[in-house]
Amino acid sequence: MGAATTLRYEVDAGIAVITLDRPGARNAFTSTMALELAAAAHAADADDAVRVVVVTGAGRDFCVGADLSAGADTFDARSRAERSAGAGTIDGVARDWGGVASLPFAELRKPVIAAVNGAAVGIGSTLVLPMDVRIAAESTRFGFVFARRGIVQEAASSWFLPRVVGISQAMEWVATGRVFGAEEALRGGLVSRVVPDDQLLDTALGLAREIADNTSAVSVGAARQLLWSMLGAASPWDAHRAESRALLEVGAGPDATEGVRSFLEKRPARFTGPLGQGSVAGVPRWPAVPGDVGPG
Amino acid sequence: MGAATTLRYEVDAGIAVITLDRPGARNAFTSTMALELAAAAHAADADDAVRVVVVTGAGRDFCVGADLSAGADTFDARSRAERSAGAGTIDGVARDWGGVASLPFAELRKPVIAAVNGAAVGIGSTLVLPMDVRIAAESTRFGFVFARRGIVQEAASSWFLPRVVGISQAMEWVATGRVFGAEEALRGGLVSRVVPDDQLLDTALGLAREIADNTSAVSVGAARQLLWSMLGAASPWDAHRAESRALLEVGAGPDATEGVRSFLEKRPARFTGPLGQGSVAGVPRWPAVPGDVGPG
Amino acid sequence: MGAATTLRYEVDAGIAVITLDRPGARNAFTSTMALELAAAAHAADADDAVRVVVVTGAGRDFCVGADLSAGADTFDARSRAERSAGAGTIDGVARDWGGVASLPFAELRKPVIAAVNGAAVGIGSTLVLPMDVRIAAESTRFGFVFARRGIVQEAASSWFLPRVVGISQAMEWVATGRVFGAEEALRGGLVSRVVPDDQLLDTALGLAREIADNTSAVSVGAARQLLWSMLGAASPWDAHRAESRALLEVGAGPDATEGVRSFLEKRPARFTGPLGQGSVAGVPRWPAVPGDVGPG
Repeated sequence: MGAATTLRYEVDAGIAVITLDRPGARNAFTSTMALELAAAAHAADADDAVRVVVVTGAGRDFCVGADLSAGADTFDARSRAERSAGAGTIDGVARDWGGVASLPFAELRKPVIAAVNGAAVGIGSTLVLPMDVRIAAESTRFGFVFARRGIVQEAASSWFLPRVVGISQAMEWVATGRVFGAEEALRGGLVSRVVPDDQLLDTALGLAREIADNTSAVSVGAARQLLWSMLGAASPWDAHRAESRALLEVGAGPDATEGVRSFLEKRPARFTGPLGQGSVAGVPRWPAVPGDVGPG
Repeated sequence: MGAATTLRYEVDAGIAVITLDRPGARNAFTSTMALELAAAAHAADADDAVRVVVVTGAGRDFCVGADLSAGADTFDARSRAERSAGAGTIDGVARDWGGVASLPFAELRKPVIAAVNGAAVGIGSTLVLPMDVRIAAESTRFGFVFARRGIVQEAASSWFLPRVVGISQAMEWVATGRVFGAEEALRGGLVSRVVPDDQLLDTALGLAREIADNTSAVSVGAARQLLWSMLGAASPWDAHRAESRALLEVGAGPDATEGVRSFLEKRPARFTGPLGQGSVAGVPRWPAVPGDVGPG
Repeated sequence: MGAATTLRYEVDAGIAVITLDRPGARNAFTSTMALELAAAAHAADADDAVRVVVVTGAGRDFCVGADLSAGADTFDARSRAERSAGAGTIDGVARDWGGVASLPFAELRKPVIAAVNGAAVGIGSTLVLPMDVRIAAESTRFGFVFARRGIVQEAASSWFLPRVVGISQAMEWVATGRVFGAEEALRGGLVSRVVPDDQLLDTALGLAREIADNTSAVSVGAARQLLWSMLGAASPWDAHRAESRALLEVGAGPDATEGVRSFLEKRPARFTGPLGQGSVAGVPRWPAVPGDVGPG
């Protein structure tokens, strides 16, 4: 991707690390950051050298929420519309910047692991919902604080949050707008693990390593699209249809042959199937918003 | 709302408390109670002085289930149809009284907290599913006992229960019809907290207070409609569409300005935006049943 | 059902026990087993003497996954198509054998309890997802290992798994393809209980007994169809519609009369309503695949 001013994008040994990088502003979220996050997600998706994505924050915090330096009219319609120029509209309405940043991670054909450090408030809490795994440090604090600021939750979190933590927990956090710690996040199912602060990134990288070292990129790409998109399907017969087609295509590829052969020979598999571009194994991609691709 | 014979409806400092009030019959559920619950929910929804709703039972129990004083033909079709006169039909069929009572709480634009005391069996267990938070006392007992009475679960619980506790736990409780205690309810996700009996109502009121004191009515109203309705949406892009519109409208309102200003000034917010009537911030309301409004 | 070569089907006192029975091959899954599982599910569904179904594995393991004795081309498209002759197609594509085996358990009008012993890997893990309750032994190991074999998850698990364990846990297990023990399965919500190895089958049979001894077959049949199918419904009003109709029909039946009468007389109920064939109480059955019925 092109040069970014609000984040770092680094690829090493199959893992892309996206680091929110405005530590002086505690990684406060801006429209530029939204576009750069979208670009980073698209870059990771398109690059066959990337198997897994890790997202974290530079400095003490993950993201303290929307940048409020514009003052009291931060969420005003006209100023929002003006600043939305780069993001387009949906149904004639200026797109929410949170969704501009979060939805490309829902579309990704590669697993995404959030390593959430320090304060993750507002968009800092909702941005990570379309990511597959969320790991918190002991000092991490979350907050769906929108109702305390007179606005509403964004980043498509109205869809993601009840699916990740259940509708009752979602309503309690959103209706109170309270800020809460890592232990409450763990009990409520928002994160799967809480680790000491100094082990956060290593834990996320270790999980990414486990995926990258042992699995087929084609398999994982098809799997991720199937699992997320089937959350919106009416019945398991929709999955039967999609999986039958995916198995037909994936089963004829080199990774399926290598997968079985390596298993029978009791040796590690050496998968070679490149993920390439576009849909995987005939799995329909989610309906993307036109113009959803960032400038990267 | 008008005078009620089966419950009390009291508003104090932003909190409406609905108390099932047939303690001599252990708050057994009747068609009159269904209509009065619907009326109470609609009254709470329409009154800008109400921010949060708490539902509990007078006396020892929350609700022991359907009133069986009509005897063995309690669930017979003809007697049901006769008694359904006040509730209308759906697809030409007499509406289930459980749904008449429970669905108005799903439609509410304000958070609902159930403080479940003593026996909460049959409709006593299903009535609380569309409520956002359920708190039990140590002595509370639940039971989805329908299969032990030769009938089936109602109050639209076939939709709510798997979303609240997951399909596996839902099936175990419904298929066995067993009565179970507060600890099993907590482990299974039916309630979020179990407290000593004498702290039940205070705990619920404390949570209601946390919401009423800190948040914008408009924000919470839009949030509740978004979160619940998106449970039925096919993809997060549906949420992106609805949230973008909601943010446009809410972001231009006085509460958004006050929310940011109070935050920057490090003082409590004083939200003034009235919720008013109808849909909030362009969020589509769920498809209501014609004639769903109670007589209150 | 007719004679089976890969499993045992035994009915005793209202409980059908299906035992995968290729212990010499650690119950590896074959196309014959898929057809025989479908036939067993259909036989249990059609037999009024069966109230509950229990599924387990003979010998040490539940099922170690697809039989790989065909070697490296096990999942190749042409060999799959050839071997699919008995299972038909969906959208012109050879049906996945996992779905051939698993979907009849989703359609069943009777509760299904999986007693999962030893290794339950690949199809051994996905086959049990449409079952209502999963109980593991202490030594049980699961694994959604598809990405380590270069293929993708099947048996309609793309739909079932996120609904049973949540999307985040589903993605972690599928993306890593790791094999994990009973305790991780319990924490992640894949099983509801872990018991000592020698108590596994008795625990499952005890739960089956609790259902068979206390409930109406008609009630449980309608309940199971309602709960599972409403996972795909857009709103609780869909459930209100279906439940109102179901209550009309079930409420007029003999079990509803006996259920209330026995309760008022404080004696055990003696339910007599036969489940019979076809849909229960007007509850729409899920859209089945044409030709979904096995040869039994």
